[in-house]
Amino acid sequence: MTIHWIAIARTLGGLLLFAGAALLAPAGVALGYGEAAWWSFGGTALGTLATGGALWFGLGGVAPQDKDLGIREGFVIVALSWVVLSLVGALPFVISDVLPSYTDAFFETMSGFTTTGATIFGGGGNMDIEAMPRSFLFWRSLTHWIGGMGIILLTLAILPILGIGGFQLYRAEVPGPSADKLTPRVRETARRLWLVYVGITAVQVLFLLPAMSGFDAINHAFATMATGGFSTKNGSVADFDSAYVDGVITLFMVLAGMNFALHYRMLRGKAITVWRDTELRVYLGIIVAATGLLVVSTWSVSGVRLPVASEAQTSFAGYDSLGEALRYGVFQAVAIITSTGFGTADYEMWPPLAVGVVFLLFFCGGMAGSTGGGVKVMRHVVLAKNALNEFKQLVHPRAVLRTHLNGQPIAPAVLRNVLLFVVLYILLLFLGTLALAALGQDLWTAFAAALSCVGNIGPGWGTVGPTENYAHLPALSKWILSFLMMAGRLEIITVLIVFTPAFWRR
Amino acid sequence: MTIHWIAIARTLGGLLLFAGAALLAPAGVALGYGEAAWWSFGGTALGTLATGGALWFGLGGVAPQDKDLGIREGFVIVALSWVVLSLVGALPFVISDVLPSYTDAFFETMSGFTTTGATIFGGGGNMDIEAMPRSFLFWRSLTHWIGGMGIILLTLAILPILGIGGFQLYRAEVPGPSADKLTPRVRETARRLWLVYVGITAVQVLFLLPAMSGFDAINHAFATMATGGFSTKNGSVADFDSAYVDGVITLFMVLAGMNFALHYRMLRGKAITVWRDTELRVYLGIIVAATGLLVVSTWSVSGVRLPVASEAQTSFAGYDSLGEALRYGVFQAVAIITSTGFGTADYEMWPPLAVGVVFLLFFCGGMAGSTGGGVKVMRHVVLAKNALNEFKQLVHPRAVLRTHLNGQPIAPAVLRNVLLFVVLYILLLFLGTLALAALGQDLWTAFAAALSCVGNIGPGWGTVGPTENYAHLPALSKWILSFLMMAGRLEIITVLIVFTPAFWRR
Ligand SMILES: [K+]
Ligand SMILES: [K+]
Repeated sequence: MTIHWIAIARTLGGLLLFAGAALLAPAGVALGYGEAAWWSFGGTALGTLATGGALWFGLGGVAPQDKDLGIREGFVIVALSWVVLSLVGALPFVISDVLPSYTDAFFETMSGFTTTGATIFGGGGNMDIEAMPRSFLFWRSLTHWIGGMGIILLTLAILPILGIGGFQLYRAEVPGPSADKLTPRVRETARRLWLVYVGITAVQVLFLLPAMSGFDAINHAFATMATGGFSTKNGSVADFDSAYVDGVITLFMVLAGMNFALHYRMLRGKAITVWRDTELRVYLGIIVAATGLLVVSTWSVSGVRLPVASEAQTSFAGYDSLGEALRYGVFQAVAIITSTGFGTADYEMWPPLAVGVVFLLFFCGGMAGSTGGGVKVMRHVVLAKNALNEFKQLVHPRAVLRTHLNGQPIAPAVLRNVLLFVVLYILLLFLGTLALAALGQDLWTAFAAALSCVGNIGPGWGTVGPTENYAHLPALSKWILSFLMMAGRLEIITVLIVFTPAFWRR
Repeated sequence: MTIHWIAIARTLGGLLLFAGAALLAPAGVALGYGEAAWWSFGGTALGTLATGGALWFGLGGVAPQDKDLGIREGFVIVALSWVVLSLVGALPFVISDVLPSYTDAFFETMSGFTTTGATIFGGGGNMDIEAMPRSFLFWRSLTHWIGGMGIILLTLAILPILGIGGFQLYRAEVPGPSADKLTPRVRETARRLWLVYVGITAVQVLFLLPAMSGFDAINHAFATMATGGFSTKNGSVADFDSAYVDGVITLFMVLAGMNFALHYRMLRGKAITVWRDTELRVYLGIIVAATGLLVVSTWSVSGVRLPVASEAQTSFAGYDSLGEALRYGVFQAVAIITSTGFGTADYEMWPPLAVGVVFLLFFCGGMAGSTGGGVKVMRHVVLAKNALNEFKQLVHPRAVLRTHLNGQPIAPAVLRNVLLFVVLYILLLFLGTLALAALGQDLWTAFAAALSCVGNIGPGWGTVGPTENYAHLPALSKWILSFLMMAGRLEIITVLIVFTPAFWRR
């Protein structure tokens, strides 16, 4: 059984047609604002459309039919999709000289499409975010939004077919693994999820409009719904200095970190079944608990500060009012757990307990089937339930015990898949840390950069902290982090399987 | 089915008798050197023997027979053993005013019995290690040696009966879980392992004698074979400044990090089956690979330094000769992977690549059934083999694939046990980090201290780095770290199961 490379090439050709069409949008924005950069988008779009068209139509007669596309072709296509999109999407940055280095441009674009939001740009100097042409600000946000939509389709419609992700629990909403593969039913699921995604984005734009320009509202809505985190401001969301904006973005980050199948169910009026979802309850519970700890730690009641809010290490003076502590606490808790990475406060300067809480949130992640990255709440739930079950089994060695989630037994295959994911996640995190340290970063920064990128969060710690950026890293480190972003975004297994001998044998 | 508390109390009484006898040894050392501290050991020994005797003989008629001791009694006894030993063993420190704070004394003693080697003492001032009475230096080493022996018996003879540890693969050497529980056969296994342990320790003393005093040789042999790491010198092993001493200790650290069942097999002349052991090959392979990377990174060929040995961050000048780089590299690689924690170099000052390698070794650990702590090589092997198998399964969904280790299939129960361990290890690491950060440590130090203690390594990073100590931590942090040391030493599951509701129900 050989792999049908021609079919893969044709599918990627289709993806290029899509990318070319997408590039016309920033070209239009550039023309609208009278920016000279329009041709760097327009030219890239033309070349991309031509290449894509040649592959798609040229191979139309040669390529095997859809039914010949098997699991292995699926893995190759998924793994290559984000690479192809980023290779093409990086070109306008270089052509227009906004980012002269192709390495930087690729990093920025991969960071966009993977909804990571780690950026080469930083406040000040040549790399001033606000000095960038608006068409590039829009393109960065659009890569987020496209990537976010892509990941929802992937995890809820395509990966279950490939047997990946531990999300087979949601098969009720999507077709099972079957002979008919990419059937009309998948297309129908995709269409509905797309409508939900577009709808919520539009509502967020409306909510943001009273407090910012239409351009900023669209860009921040794109970055929020994708849990991306690119901002049009040097100081991220903090620059709006508005409790209203913070509140709206917090709310929509929470929505973006939820399983989109739940949104769809909710719209169909099944709110009660949504509320019964265990993962949702844990997700909201973590947000509430983390916010509580952050408030306790950062709120400076006049004269009375808790010992956990010790100022020993930082110059952070504490928030004067409960409202302020709550506003910054909940925003940052949600920004990190959902892996959005927006900032309204420099969490590295917070008191020790708050710093510890934010650090733990780096390992949490949003819900399965959301646009959020990281480990995902679902996997933590499965691991916790399994751990409690194992303890019971040790006390009662002869009992036959099963673990349930939302009333259904957790299949052994799901558990094994979660285990595999966690092992590979840690492996990538550690190899990434080692590589970045070897290339000159201090260990803490190396660890934080690898963690932030594999979890698609964006900001890290140390010299890639929330007030810093990734520009100063050596080129090879940027390529390594680009790979980590892609692997993390595609649930890791999908990417690494292509590197195993078993995949290519026979 | 209630728990037989009386039987548990009687067993712990027996343990106190043993502890009382052990305390007579440092009392003898104190008398021999004419130290006033002899009565603090003698007095504690008397009190301990009296209490232990009262429990053991007083409850002899009341307590149920051995056959009534079930799995749950076993867990409680194991979890309480290290606590009881440390509660008692800490007393002489306080009585003699060597460590006026009971918190410090308990931390130091738990660190000893768990073979962690994290210490309150540091070079200089009141806390000068070399200014301590020799009887206390000996007691610290003896707690290591007793703890090391205890852990070998526990993992190779007792935990398999309780269904813990994922080491059931070695059941050939030890009795299976059976109705006869603590049978003569367990005693026979224990006796043989004890002989091996004593024998190798004696050989190491002989090897060390040419280069140091008999007192130092015995203490360092105790600390080496237990992978403990307490030294009688302020500057640890570096103070001997001898390539011969470094070499001998490196060799015996490697032996101490090996499964003692393999040593026993080797002594029975089955060297070939030992060499075929997969875990042993991986263990040695990691040591060779890590040493290679450390040499590449720290060796300064005159004028020609590899880019990975960049001096950007530290004042470390590099080792002039290959021999020197090898000597310090292999020592530190082995000291960390075996979780001994001895130091001949300040790895925090090494170049970035070396720092990254040492950091990764913190997550490795020795072999199962050794005195080494950490995750253990066995678990990494099981996880890696399972990961490769899962990849194969994804490519061939309908195939029935099994994972093998040393020619035998890996039982699903073993895999589940490994998974549970890893989940709990990470959980403890993270909760420990959060707690220590909340109590005022910077995040990096908090993470490193939790990691070093749960892995029973000793030195960490930041303000608990290899040239620092744990004295400056707040009292509550010391108790938390003491708990982490104990949990890590007892394979975590053994300790945490006692905190689950399922354990106490029915
Ligand atoms: K992000
Ligand atoms: K140690």
